[in-house]
Amino acid sequence: MPLQISDLGDAVLHTRYAVRGPIVARAQELEENGRSIIYCNIGNPQSLGQKPLSYARNVLAVCEQPELIRAGAGVFERDVLEKAKYIMEASKYGLGAYSESKGLGFVRRAVAEFIKARDTFDSVAQRVDPNHVYLTDGASKGVQAALRLLISSEKDGILIPIPQYPLYSATITLYGGQQVGYYLDEESGWSLSEEMLEEAIHDAMKRGVRARAIVVINPGNPTGGVLSEENMRMVVRFAKRHGLTILADEVYQQNVYKPGARFISFAHILTSMCEREVSLFSFHSISKGFFGECGQRGGYMEARNVPEEVIAQITKLQSVALCANLPGQILTFLLVSPPKQGEPSYNRYTEERSAILSELAERAKIMYEGLNRIPGFSCQPIDGAMYAFPSITLPRGRSDEEYCMSLLEEKGICVVPGSGFGQKPGTAHFRTTILPPTDQIERVIGAISDFHTNWR
Amino acid sequence: MPLQISDLGDAVLHTRYAVRGPIVARAQELEENGRSIIYCNIGNPQSLGQKPLSYARNVLAVCEQPELIRAGAGVFERDVLEKAKYIMEASKYGLGAYSESKGLGFVRRAVAEFIKARDTFDSVAQRVDPNHVYLTDGASKGVQAALRLLISSEKDGILIPIPQYPLYSATITLYGGQQVGYYLDEESGWSLSEEMLEEAIHDAMKRGVRARAIVVINPGNPTGGVLSEENMRMVVRFAKRHGLTILADEVYQQNVYKPGARFISFAHILTSMCEREVSLFSFHSISKGFFGECGQRGGYMEARNVPEEVIAQITKLQSVALCANLPGQILTFLLVSPPKQGEPSYNRYTEERSAILSELAERAKIMYEGLNRIPGFSCQPIDGAMYAFPSITLPRGRSDEEYCMSLLEEKGICVVPGSGFGQKPGTAHFRTTILPPTDQIERVIGAISDFHTNWR
Repeated sequence: MPLQISDLGDAVLHTRYAVRGPIVARAQELEENGRSIIYCNIGNPQSLGQKPLSYARNVLAVCEQPELIRAGAGVFERDVLEKAKYIMEASKYGLGAYSESKGLGFVRRAVAEFIKARDTFDSVAQRVDPNHVYLTDGASKGVQAALRLLISSEKDGILIPIPQYPLYSATITLYGGQQVGYYLDEESGWSLSEEMLEEAIHDAMKRGVRARAIVVINPGNPTGGVLSEENMRMVVRFAKRHGLTILADEVYQQNVYKPGARFISFAHILTSMCEREVSLFSFHSISKGFFGECGQRGGYMEARNVPEEVIAQITKLQSVALCANLPGQILTFLLVSPPKQGEPSYNRYTEERSAILSELAERAKIMYEGLNRIPGFSCQPIDGAMYAFPSITLPRGRSDEEYCMSLLEEKGICVVPGSGFGQKPGTAHFRTTILPPTDQIERVIGAISDFHTNWR
Repeated sequence: MPLQISDLGDAVLHTRYAVRGPIVARAQELEENGRSIIYCNIGNPQSLGQKPLSYARNVLAVCEQPELIRAGAGVFERDVLEKAKYIMEASKYGLGAYSESKGLGFVRRAVAEFIKARDTFDSVAQRVDPNHVYLTDGASKGVQAALRLLISSEKDGILIPIPQYPLYSATITLYGGQQVGYYLDEESGWSLSEEMLEEAIHDAMKRGVRARAIVVINPGNPTGGVLSEENMRMVVRFAKRHGLTILADEVYQQNVYKPGARFISFAHILTSMCEREVSLFSFHSISKGFFGECGQRGGYMEARNVPEEVIAQITKLQSVALCANLPGQILTFLLVSPPKQGEPSYNRYTEERSAILSELAERAKIMYEGLNRIPGFSCQPIDGAMYAFPSITLPRGRSDEEYCMSLLEEKGICVVPGSGFGQKPGTAHFRTTILPPTDQIERVIGAISDFHTNWR
């Protein structure tokens, strides 16, 4: 008999990933039948018209075909060719050979420099070890590597925010661990509360679950919140008190729109607290920010306060599938080492970057204001990331899954129900990206408003 | 307290991957201290001087920077630009957007056509469903996806050859399953024997292990053997008898050197036997063959005789980390849809391909003959793949790990001990690639011979 569904284990069967769940499958079906769909379900900027950075693509094209170094003088700027030449030499064999399991050494060193420069402020000086940096196929693979390490039995629990990005719930289920949800406080812009954290961990203990780690997503997905420094310090103290490793999902670190706010990393917080007892894995990606290079699957994980013998175990696990893809590694390098002032590509690079980031900030504002104008909607400020997660009032007895499916069927707008991320019982939400072009966003809001008013 | 090694689970701690184990770590150390090392430990052709295919890299460069379509008329052949234009249109958003979880539809359709063309012979006509094709970050990730599905408890066993490629043993350990080793018959060119298979599965049953699948690597890694059609039919009958899924690792399908031999896929065998009761996952890669694009991480998995509801589960699991990297997907497309006769790139493409494949065939011959000239060595014919796995006679009480470490220290040659792949008790082997350039191979053999004669 061939393989049957009854042969599969619960871990596989129970895994759920709503961002690409049944509503998205239905959207693709409708599209194949000729309907026009606006995909607001996934943070995939280039599928909604965002252009890749010219500099990044120019350098990568030359790395893929180094003969362009000779031929390309008329086509590419001088610094593009020089950067590509540097990459070819530093990588030793170009893009076609496996790199070492952690990723190319010169890229990891550049990542370490990037973190150091980013985090050295408020008189806090950073030291970053390139040997504790891992290059990964997108941040997702880094998160999975860390969870793989931390979950060793069905008693191992991982604290995840509610709402969360379903990569976490899916991977914890798949790896046979326990989700320990802690609620974010919607009214205060989705901040963390010590009380909620303590409550979550004590409930877990009562179930016999040993909490191993806490996941914090900052800026927030799906919430759009940005954590305050004080809130982050509280998390570190909480982690220390309970012996938890922190998993800091910081892939939206370049997407902060709140005027006057800046991104603060957990690495900075740890250093500023002189905290060496709390282990930290932090994640970054080329998919978000202003690169938006989702398809190229690049990113990194930095391990901090993790002993060398554990580092050796991570390296061993990474080696089994050999290495992250090299184009993604190179784009990660370009993300952390942009053109410098005075170089020929500098102006275009900064213009493209600013245009993308200010567009996103504008869309965040339009989305926030537009959603809050709809009666029955309440949306927290979109201070960062790429999403709105409005609270919505539904007719009695109806679910947010039904709501989102009807919104798709009636208006051709694809969003993800709040239940896919988790939400307080009795509340309903959905997640929409802020990524459609400005003129489309207005139409999306109009259509949602119209739908909401009439749906029963 | 930070994360400790004692916090990690046995699955992580017990995982071993010899191809990048302690001997390779020592080689890197020596290299950093100025020693010159010949890496024969890993099938990484471009690190040993193999050039990427010009056509593949040209098209990929244009896809990374589509502005080259306008600028590139003088630089690239017409068909390169047309192919890139086709890819940009068919992919809809280019390389920077997530594709669907299975991979780009037009690439999967091209893979299906490739399989069909490859396997339609001896009056056997193939049907291949593109929706049962998954594009993966190298074949390794495909293998892991299949094993993830098949291992749901510590009682689930996977039959793997001894010797095997340690991706299998490592992943089975990591996923908490049981290895069920079956010996290959060295004397007959590492073929499979029904007796050995039955013995292995009965021993497993006695241990309370339920065998779920059988892994077959053809052409063989590390053995260099190529299976006969009759041997493969025997495996299918065996799999059917015991309700096993077949995992066919066919990444060396374009590396067959034996005169008159051709690669036969398990998909072809199933179809020729009209066998619909045996599920099959088969794997291919851009890393081997004549592409040698290891760093770019591309490949595919085809599922056959697998019901739709199981397919849906695989798709769900693939969706959690979103999709395989797009450059790797595009190279997979180029692997399965090369330039056609009459197109401007055709001649150069076929010349480059032939040069690489005939070089590899020559190196296989030199390695085979050279190793067999060393007293105490016995090496089976290298009919395919990229490795030799000679049987060696060691001084009493010495291990192949010690042997390989000394070979590294004394001669700067990095090979992998047979124990990393598995071998019959009382025998010793090592795996070396056939990838060093022809003049270096002679020196490698000379150095091994010299070392072997003097090592005590």
